[in-house]
Amino acid sequence: MQKTQANKGWIRRVTPGLEPPSLGDNTADVDRLTRGIKKALGTAQDVCVGLSRAGKVSAFLRKWDYQVKASIYEDHGCWHLIDITDARDEEGLFGMALDLGSSTLVVRLLDLETGDRIDEISFHNPQIEVGADILARIHFASKEEGLAKLQAMVINRLNEAVEDLCSKHGIRKESVMAMSVAGNTTMTHLFLGLSPYWLCREPYIPVLNRAELIPSSELNLVIHPAAPVLAAPNVGSYFGGDLIAGILASGMHQQEQVSFLVDVGTNAEVVIGNRDWLMACAGAAGPALEGGVADMGMMAGPGVIDRVVIDPDTREFKIGIIRDETHEGLRTKGPVGICGSGLIDLAAQLFRAGMIDLRGKFVDAACANRLVEEDGIRHLIVVFPHESGTGRSLTLSQTDIDGLIRSKAAMYTILTTIANTVNISFPEIGKFYVAGTFGSYIDPRSAIMIGMLPDLPLDTYASLGNTSLEGAAMALLDAEAKASLFQIRDRITYLELNVNQEFMNLFSAARFIPHTDRSLFPSVTAGG
Amino acid sequence: MQKTQANKGWIRRVTPGLEPPSLGDNTADVDRLTRGIKKALGTAQDVCVGLSRAGKVSAFLRKWDYQVKASIYEDHGCWHLIDITDARDEEGLFGMALDLGSSTLVVRLLDLETGDRIDEISFHNPQIEVGADILARIHFASKEEGLAKLQAMVINRLNEAVEDLCSKHGIRKESVMAMSVAGNTTMTHLFLGLSPYWLCREPYIPVLNRAELIPSSELNLVIHPAAPVLAAPNVGSYFGGDLIAGILASGMHQQEQVSFLVDVGTNAEVVIGNRDWLMACAGAAGPALEGGVADMGMMAGPGVIDRVVIDPDTREFKIGIIRDETHEGLRTKGPVGICGSGLIDLAAQLFRAGMIDLRGKFVDAACANRLVEEDGIRHLIVVFPHESGTGRSLTLSQTDIDGLIRSKAAMYTILTTIANTVNISFPEIGKFYVAGTFGSYIDPRSAIMIGMLPDLPLDTYASLGNTSLEGAAMALLDAEAKASLFQIRDRITYLELNVNQEFMNLFSAARFIPHTDRSLFPSVTAGG
Repeated sequence: MQKTQANKGWIRRVTPGLEPPSLGDNTADVDRLTRGIKKALGTAQDVCVGLSRAGKVSAFLRKWDYQVKASIYEDHGCWHLIDITDARDEEGLFGMALDLGSSTLVVRLLDLETGDRIDEISFHNPQIEVGADILARIHFASKEEGLAKLQAMVINRLNEAVEDLCSKHGIRKESVMAMSVAGNTTMTHLFLGLSPYWLCREPYIPVLNRAELIPSSELNLVIHPAAPVLAAPNVGSYFGGDLIAGILASGMHQQEQVSFLVDVGTNAEVVIGNRDWLMACAGAAGPALEGGVADMGMMAGPGVIDRVVIDPDTREFKIGIIRDETHEGLRTKGPVGICGSGLIDLAAQLFRAGMIDLRGKFVDAACANRLVEEDGIRHLIVVFPHESGTGRSLTLSQTDIDGLIRSKAAMYTILTTIANTVNISFPEIGKFYVAGTFGSYIDPRSAIMIGMLPDLPLDTYASLGNTSLEGAAMALLDAEAKASLFQIRDRITYLELNVNQEFMNLFSAARFIPHTDRSLFPSVTAGG
Repeated sequence: MQKTQANKGWIRRVTPGLEPPSLGDNTADVDRLTRGIKKALGTAQDVCVGLSRAGKVSAFLRKWDYQVKASIYEDHGCWHLIDITDARDEEGLFGMALDLGSSTLVVRLLDLETGDRIDEISFHNPQIEVGADILARIHFASKEEGLAKLQAMVINRLNEAVEDLCSKHGIRKESVMAMSVAGNTTMTHLFLGLSPYWLCREPYIPVLNRAELIPSSELNLVIHPAAPVLAAPNVGSYFGGDLIAGILASGMHQQEQVSFLVDVGTNAEVVIGNRDWLMACAGAAGPALEGGVADMGMMAGPGVIDRVVIDPDTREFKIGIIRDETHEGLRTKGPVGICGSGLIDLAAQLFRAGMIDLRGKFVDAACANRLVEEDGIRHLIVVFPHESGTGRSLTLSQTDIDGLIRSKAAMYTILTTIANTVNISFPEIGKFYVAGTFGSYIDPRSAIMIGMLPDLPLDTYASLGNTSLEGAAMALLDAEAKASLFQIRDRITYLELNVNQEFMNLFSAARFIPHTDRSLFPSVTAGG
């Protein structure tokens, strides 16, 4: 594995095998080192040593008798020195890949020499303190010192995570010699300290779409100060590096068959294409799909409902909750809320059991004693107080279902619109990739049943998990993958969704379960 | 001129002609700018914008309605943004070329668009305060904070000079968008903040010979913070960027004929070669040639003797002094000392008039009443008190002449040795370039008469002035010249002078005026 990785990587460590200087070979220290690196790489490319590194080379070479390892990275056709270390030092060469989410950050520690994934931790984005939604943060950034504060929040928290990972694995922070970051356009701007002011103002212009590699010291990261930081490029304000990384992770850009890639969140981000073409669009699908706005909605976590089965005959509820792997004692506690995938399951099962109708309205007779009314809005008791982890009943309101239906209709309409634009019918789709932590929990059967996703054979659907993180990691490990990241960006045609009459007609037709046109969902047989 | 310069320069200003963004073309600001620059250059090369610049682009583009000029420089096959300015701003694009001497710095202000030389000022190297000679500075650099202090001394003084030049010509400091520096290896190290510790210790290893372009902010210069600073590369500890720049300025590296280039100072630095090969060496010629150690020796300046003619019959002295161009009133003042070229003239004329013999000893009879003895050492009165600007007599001691003869013998021996090494006889030399401010005042007739330079036709000799500064300026203005600087460095074979028996024999033979072997100096007919 090591050999293979060594030839793929754009961040490498080589052992130049330097002869100590003599009167017969009195080349300067830095020149001796770059000559050795070129030879070790077998390259005709230039090897560059920046001034701040150059100032340290002489002392280090002498300290270690010219027996050193050189950590380098490639950029624009040159190799750049990150640092030299004692050749006898056993410490590895590490990198961090970061999924820079607006709610959650996930950082993965990688061995850059073997390609091994060592560990991964996730934590909340501390910018939530300023505002849960992106617009609040953009607003805050325009205040005095606001941008710097937002940047510092995320960098400081990330630095803690890096320190935790390093100390857990007995690694020096300076041995982390590269980082890659994939986030949406706003998050990437805030991370880089670039003003997001124009991102949300017509015509929605980012400061940049393609950042150069940035020395970690410019971002105040605690990893090696000369480590390059790679930010996944954006297509524009509404289509960020997280999705470009996602395409890379899916591999759809290399396949002959046409695939869909969908990342479901507050926005539904959709890509369709293959090795010859890629088209993308993003539209507001509403936070309902993430379970964010439902009364009992929560982010996935221990005690949260992620699976629901309702017996169509007895209308008995079987509730699955996410277990806390680390605290066995909590297993006996009841559910505390529902996450997005649980909500989709719930809606699908309610429909299958005839408890909601085509329009998503509660069917009185079928819901029976589970139905209560509060402030003139009907609620369905999903979990009764005695079974609940909160001691109170967990309920789903008619408003919650209405929101979910609007969101699923938006998603289906977006999929239909982009497919129509490229003149592809759903059955021609080879693979339908669902990305995102949330996406990975969605049961495609349920999503099809409520008409959120097209009625394709179940094996068409593939859940890819955190593709943003996966793509960031791939781009950090592999020079070709890094190049692909930028090629994908350049290849994408972005479809501006026009909410015109045609779109509204499609949307209205999709606001039924599964759809006004039942022929589009032949597999969905049950229902009220 | 402008057109030509525009195509030669590696530092350029282009007007990208950007369209303001719209919903139909919502490319990011930085990407829009780089796209425009690429188009304006008509290049397929990458255009890079560093993070600190990128953060400012959006605001500037909007402030100036996307009508901007972009100042850029090329490095390793990419163009890098220095800054953007309002397209309606009339300010030019400027650069500074610096001759970084150990005693004197000369800085030249250049218009990078027209290639015009605007002005030039010189000032003493403030590091003289720490030590007039290089070794004292190297020693000081190894003390705590010593290196930082030495660097700050020269940078601060240079910044003053830059500010003076800019305010004199009504130029903003930020409009100086590049600098080039040529100095000896130690001076270059101190300028860059690199330790010179190993330069003077066997095997005499520089930290680096080839520095990358350095952003001016890393050196705390007051010019534009993103301006690239080019340091002329060194061959080694004893052959620095000032000489590489000198070769570039001479053009000898492009000629078919074989030329000599000699820079005379404390060291005699000698290059011989043509477009096919270049060989260099450096040797201690002694400070006597610069007039530094003679009793009446001084650096060239107002009131200093630079020309001497002695009538061979009457032995009457005609003394030429350097006039103070700025203070006409001082014209009547007599001489105050003698500079190196004056000393060489004086020695040649004394020999021609029979006042010193072959060995450089005073001839009593011929010197007559000019000869006095002090502390057992004979002195020749060159200027009597009533004609002197100091009110005292200006005298030349036997010790001064002995020193001069050792130095001129060393110079001739070095020339002979390097010519022998490449198997070239002096008459085969096409051009003999004499570099340096001092060198530009030497009368080749006098230098030949005392046997310091070989007896070649006078039109073989060409005085080039400050070739270090000239080469630095050329490399700043012209991409090809910049590339040549590094090619010259790589092409040079450095000849380590071994002070062996053969060298000592040559040296002994050269310690006569003009030489033991009179056949080497057929043109020198007069003499004692």
